[in-house]
Amino acid sequence: MPKNPIRKIWSEGAGVINGWLSIGNPFSAEIMASCGYDSITVDMQHGAIGYESMLVMLQAIRASGVAPMVRVPWLEPGAIMKVLDGGAWGVICPMVNSRADAERLVSYVRYPPHGNRSFGPTRANFAIGADYATVADDEVLCFAMIETAQAMSNLEEIVRTPGLDGVYVGPADLTLGLTGRRYRTGFDREEPEMLHAIQHIKTVAHAAGIRMGLHNGSADYAAKALTWGCDLVTVSNDVRLLTQAAQQSVADVRRL
Amino acid sequence: MPKNPIRKIWSEGAGVINGWLSIGNPFSAEIMASCGYDSITVDMQHGAIGYESMLVMLQAIRASGVAPMVRVPWLEPGAIMKVLDGGAWGVICPMVNSRADAERLVSYVRYPPHGNRSFGPTRANFAIGADYATVADDEVLCFAMIETAQAMSNLEEIVRTPGLDGVYVGPADLTLGLTGRRYRTGFDREEPEMLHAIQHIKTVAHAAGIRMGLHNGSADYAAKALTWGCDLVTVSNDVRLLTQAAQQSVADVRRL
Amino acid sequence: MPKNPIRKIWSEGAGVINGWLSIGNPFSAEIMASCGYDSITVDMQHGAIGYESMLVMLQAIRASGVAPMVRVPWLEPGAIMKVLDGGAWGVICPMVNSRADAERLVSYVRYPPHGNRSFGPTRANFAIGADYATVADDEVLCFAMIETAQAMSNLEEIVRTPGLDGVYVGPADLTLGLTGRRYRTGFDREEPEMLHAIQHIKTVAHAAGIRMGLHNGSADYAAKALTWGCDLVTVSNDVRLLTQAAQQSVADVRRL
Amino acid sequence: MPKNPIRKIWSEGAGVINGWLSIGNPFSAEIMASCGYDSITVDMQHGAIGYESMLVMLQAIRASGVAPMVRVPWLEPGAIMKVLDGGAWGVICPMVNSRADAERLVSYVRYPPHGNRSFGPTRANFAIGADYATVADDEVLCFAMIETAQAMSNLEEIVRTPGLDGVYVGPADLTLGLTGRRYRTGFDREEPEMLHAIQHIKTVAHAAGIRMGLHNGSADYAAKALTWGCDLVTVSNDVRLLTQAAQQSVADVRRL
Amino acid sequence: MPKNPIRKIWSEGAGVINGWLSIGNPFSAEIMASCGYDSITVDMQHGAIGYESMLVMLQAIRASGVAPMVRVPWLEPGAIMKVLDGGAWGVICPMVNSRADAERLVSYVRYPPHGNRSFGPTRANFAIGADYATVADDEVLCFAMIETAQAMSNLEEIVRTPGLDGVYVGPADLTLGLTGRRYRTGFDREEPEMLHAIQHIKTVAHAAGIRMGLHNGSADYAAKALTWGCDLVTVSNDVRLLTQAAQQSVADVRRL
Amino acid sequence: MPKNPIRKIWSEGAGVINGWLSIGNPFSAEIMASCGYDSITVDMQHGAIGYESMLVMLQAIRASGVAPMVRVPWLEPGAIMKVLDGGAWGVICPMVNSRADAERLVSYVRYPPHGNRSFGPTRANFAIGADYATVADDEVLCFAMIETAQAMSNLEEIVRTPGLDGVYVGPADLTLGLTGRRYRTGFDREEPEMLHAIQHIKTVAHAAGIRMGLHNGSADYAAKALTWGCDLVTVSNDVRLLTQAAQQSVADVRRL
Ligand SMILES: [Mg+2]
Ligand SMILES: [Mg+2]
Ligand SMILES: [Mg+2]
Ligand SMILES: [Mg+2]
Ligand SMILES: [Mg+2]
Ligand SMILES: [Mg+2]
Repeated sequence: MPKNPIRKIWSEGAGVINGWLSIGNPFSAEIMASCGYDSITVDMQHGAIGYESMLVMLQAIRASGVAPMVRVPWLEPGAIMKVLDGGAWGVICPMVNSRADAERLVSYVRYPPHGNRSFGPTRANFAIGADYATVADDEVLCFAMIETAQAMSNLEEIVRTPGLDGVYVGPADLTLGLTGRRYRTGFDREEPEMLHAIQHIKTVAHAAGIRMGLHNGSADYAAKALTWGCDLVTVSNDVRLLTQAAQQSVADVRRL
Repeated sequence: MPKNPIRKIWSEGAGVINGWLSIGNPFSAEIMASCGYDSITVDMQHGAIGYESMLVMLQAIRASGVAPMVRVPWLEPGAIMKVLDGGAWGVICPMVNSRADAERLVSYVRYPPHGNRSFGPTRANFAIGADYATVADDEVLCFAMIETAQAMSNLEEIVRTPGLDGVYVGPADLTLGLTGRRYRTGFDREEPEMLHAIQHIKTVAHAAGIRMGLHNGSADYAAKALTWGCDLVTVSNDVRLLTQAAQQSVADVRRL
Repeated sequence: MPKNPIRKIWSEGAGVINGWLSIGNPFSAEIMASCGYDSITVDMQHGAIGYESMLVMLQAIRASGVAPMVRVPWLEPGAIMKVLDGGAWGVICPMVNSRADAERLVSYVRYPPHGNRSFGPTRANFAIGADYATVADDEVLCFAMIETAQAMSNLEEIVRTPGLDGVYVGPADLTLGLTGRRYRTGFDREEPEMLHAIQHIKTVAHAAGIRMGLHNGSADYAAKALTWGCDLVTVSNDVRLLTQAAQQSVADVRRL
Repeated sequence: MPKNPIRKIWSEGAGVINGWLSIGNPFSAEIMASCGYDSITVDMQHGAIGYESMLVMLQAIRASGVAPMVRVPWLEPGAIMKVLDGGAWGVICPMVNSRADAERLVSYVRYPPHGNRSFGPTRANFAIGADYATVADDEVLCFAMIETAQAMSNLEEIVRTPGLDGVYVGPADLTLGLTGRRYRTGFDREEPEMLHAIQHIKTVAHAAGIRMGLHNGSADYAAKALTWGCDLVTVSNDVRLLTQAAQQSVADVRRL
Repeated sequence: MPKNPIRKIWSEGAGVINGWLSIGNPFSAEIMASCGYDSITVDMQHGAIGYESMLVMLQAIRASGVAPMVRVPWLEPGAIMKVLDGGAWGVICPMVNSRADAERLVSYVRYPPHGNRSFGPTRANFAIGADYATVADDEVLCFAMIETAQAMSNLEEIVRTPGLDGVYVGPADLTLGLTGRRYRTGFDREEPEMLHAIQHIKTVAHAAGIRMGLHNGSADYAAKALTWGCDLVTVSNDVRLLTQAAQQSVADVRRL
Repeated sequence: MPKNPIRKIWSEGAGVINGWLSIGNPFSAEIMASCGYDSITVDMQHGAIGYESMLVMLQAIRASGVAPMVRVPWLEPGAIMKVLDGGAWGVICPMVNSRADAERLVSYVRYPPHGNRSFGPTRANFAIGADYATVADDEVLCFAMIETAQAMSNLEEIVRTPGLDGVYVGPADLTLGLTGRRYRTGFDREEPEMLHAIQHIKTVAHAAGIRMGLHNGSADYAAKALTWGCDLVTVSNDVRLLTQAAQQSVADVRRL
């Protein structure tokens, strides 16, 4: 019976270290999958990645045993179900702002009678196993992103949505949503109100018995988030890692 | 009249800092082209890159103004001419081992009467300019790789091949070729005999009035090579930069 | 005036034998189009197929004269119209659960005043003909999938939606929807209640003067469905055909 | 601070001449971007273009300095935001039929507090600049297509939607929508009622202080539209240009 | 028994009007195949086209019934045989400069005992027919390009190579080869020595009982070439047609 | 230390059952890799597969643990080395007709001092392991195809080429080469002279201490070949399996 590697790590009491892919290429995906992450998320929302690229990326990740997840572009049934049929072990859905949103999300991820996911796990049958249908509802992860003022208002209701496994916090959007343009855009917030918001989400999620993940731009911040009790931390992404490393490399050679 | 940016840098007395692409993707190419390199080489030999990827990578690099070159898979006329018609500002050809090899290489890169390049610069007419045909033979760069024992023996003859602009040293192959399996594989050689070989190539190339480039795996070594008088230094590549950055990132979060 | 080959077969009183593509590749599509099917459906819902693959698959099928249809991922106007502009002779839409759903579907498939399809049949003008605009509303086929308990409840209303050409039954989803997890997942149902449901859909569709198609996993079941009066039967798909043939081939050589 | 080239042309009092891409290829895009247009629109609605092609087309256009826009398939947040993250300087959205539609459109294009665009301009940070986030809301263009009878009824309300930069008229759909099948399909309308409708849209848009663009099938009509005061005129598209030129070329050689 | 459409036209005493593809896209190929050409050549030498694009272009052309040929990058057996296995009805090989070159070319195009073509017509079996193997050697066309001074010297020997169907003249290369840089580059030569060379090739080819094709940049020149007795005339190409039409279109709207 | 799975099977005294891919798609590759074969060969010679497709196919196969090999288009150093850098566990080279051919082949596959393979195993470092360089020469398989009359004449010399691991027999070409057009084309020969030739190759190969593989079109013939002592048998291919299964499926439903 195939098991979701992320659930396994949690069952051992550890936090999950997640990589993030924004370049639409199977070789960079294969490289990232070799670098020690516990899970890898293919970002179809803000990444430069369409369906065709996402699919070969999932194929390229498979051999590593690292659990692939996909952040979908939006709360749309067609896109979400295609990602799962393609063999993702989890879905991260942006901009889940209400209990109704969260219920729709779950309904797209679970088969009847728990939801309305349509049956046809074409690649999942190969990538995960021929018995995929029997384990999918128990093993596939369903994350709702909390990243707007509206989501914060509805947080208690959202986290109690049956079938939801966790919330995932997007600090860039959450900051824009809660504070407008008062602060710089981006991750790794240090403003007290943002720190408070993030901690609050974690507390509310845990109280409801679900997981909490956080998007981070640096190892330092991700490590700190693990100490806070975050269950899954994303550490930077391929674009940022490559850009910073290349810029540093050029600066070094020019300076030396 | 379009000018090769690499020749311009040399005409100003500076060394060229070259980036290296082994991932076959236009977005990672566009990212790398933004990171401060003077030139970028698309590696069709050892990179995971075929013709179709190479072409969109050249397109993605174009806006940066960074000069694109291509390392071709082998000394083959079809492949070399396609790369130039695709808009590369230079060709780096592996395993040029004799004067005859070098003459064949030049003949593929230059139009008659200087060579036998076939006429049809389909994308170069757009990427470089409608007057490409009038400047190509003067501006396009032709590099022969010196990376075998045989090439070392024939070095004096190779560097004097009319129409050759430079030699490019591949330290991994050169080490294998000169020393067999005595040392580790890879770049950034520190063995005295390898240092001597590299310096020798530079001296012989310069004596013949042509340029010398060196492939390096680190900024430190590339910086050192510039102080030796190398005219073009490659600093790592996208695969290595991404791998090291991602591994470091995961290690940091696990350690912190 | 171009004619939809599927309508022609029906007008001759025969049933349509439909192939099904879940591999996103134009060569496998071209192969399947040569194998004797009357129509071929590119499955963008559960198939590992995005827009870019779908398009080249339609191109590869064209020469065969076999009518291409597309199952879209969901009841979404953008996706449905793109498929038709790409030259599909018909659309199969999943999860049409109510009269309102069916009306929206028709509105996406028909031009004003019959619907709200936006005008711009860019490839259809080439694949089907320059007079596509004048025949599209009469010739293009519009199928609503009946595959949930809700759809069964609303069946009488759905089948009477003006502009709908037929219903298409997805037995895997219908079984999940009607019976939960009581039975195995998949096609070729033999449970009396499922047989009854399928027959019921056929009867209701025919009473409303529209067509009824059935998804099948084997030639045996498809042949039986034709005897029931189904107007279009899908017989297996490329993934299943290839998997079974390859597994059998390996088993044979190991056994022999 | 990066500036939208289209706004710059308008600020100089000129009309914008827009090219249109329906072939999903970066080389034809690069060619079109070299031909003198002020802006180029990648048509993801009726063009044979998916996300993956659109992205490389934006990359291929970038070097020209011509402003890229994208017509999206439909009023969908996921698709619209992906296009902007991909580096488009503007979005043209089909079938905006009501004030509510227009408000949703704006909300997908603007960051909070002006809208609900999610933050993550992955390629825009490279294509437009690292300070993209600070200029996006001021510089990115948001066009609503007016092309149905319903949109005409709601025109006054639509054009006054805060954050909307302009309306774009699709004459083929507008003719179908206003007159059914009375006239031929297509652009370059000469019927008095259609001419009146187009002029009316322009007048109402200008009265609200926003721009008006018109889709045209010929240079003659586009030139006429400029004299009417249209702010942006599309002149034919790649498919039509290529088809007409090739047909003419063959006819010439057969006749000569 | 499948017949090469080009041979059929010749058997009727007419000249063949050939289209030329330099954009690597199946939709532009499908468009061009609809425009009235007798044959279409996919240019893998100077076109921006690799193997993967070539293949889908052949698929997209198939439905038109227009005969597809491919110009290969160079006289290389691997590339030539792949093109034929892919379903091309003919091969045009650049830079055939000697009898030995021509014999190698024929040997790559014909099966034993006439040549050394390796057996495996994977797509040709579908595109042309299951009996492809029985007709290939009689029907597939083999063209050698005459475009260098050396080829002119060896012309009498080349045209008499058994199994060669025709010569194809590349005027841009031939001019460079015969006259160096004395004249502008390109097609449609008017210099007396070039006109003489072209006529000479035609005369020698016809005397040997083989065909003569000419690459042209305009309908005027192609029409003239037909009156000279050329058997196949290429008329411009997709890049040139699109560029000229788009530039003209923009110029018209700016002037009007 | 990574081990070639094919060598492991042989070391256990068993024959290797090889699958064959002619469709250029990673999903069909992933499917085939799940069907029980010991190894899978991506056919870049006669398959409809270019470099870009081959690469994603190797990635898709990786997770299965089935050993991937590649048949290259021809005896060309650039192509052969790219395939190995891409992570293939073996190379099958067509048309090796002499000892000199075989020596060139080995030189392209082995690093100095055993050959001239250029160093840069970019993807092999990930697919096979970071210590790839230390095992490549011992583990990578090098097969020469014996499929011409000339190869048969030179067989004794070919099989004794140092560094060659095996010969692979292509019965279609071998039959053409030995008997011209006397017999049908294709595999699974039953003519006594062909049976004798195949047995002879096996005997000579084994006498030289190397392996012998045979290409077969059916499980029956492959099973028989195993009983003859063939070390590796290919059983049909994806195109043939899919075509036969689909044709049979349609025939069944029409007959039933
Ligand atoms: Mg977000
Ligand atoms: Mg090297
Ligand atoms: Mg279903
Ligand atoms: Mg419209
Ligand atoms: Mg030429
Ligand atoms: Mg063979």
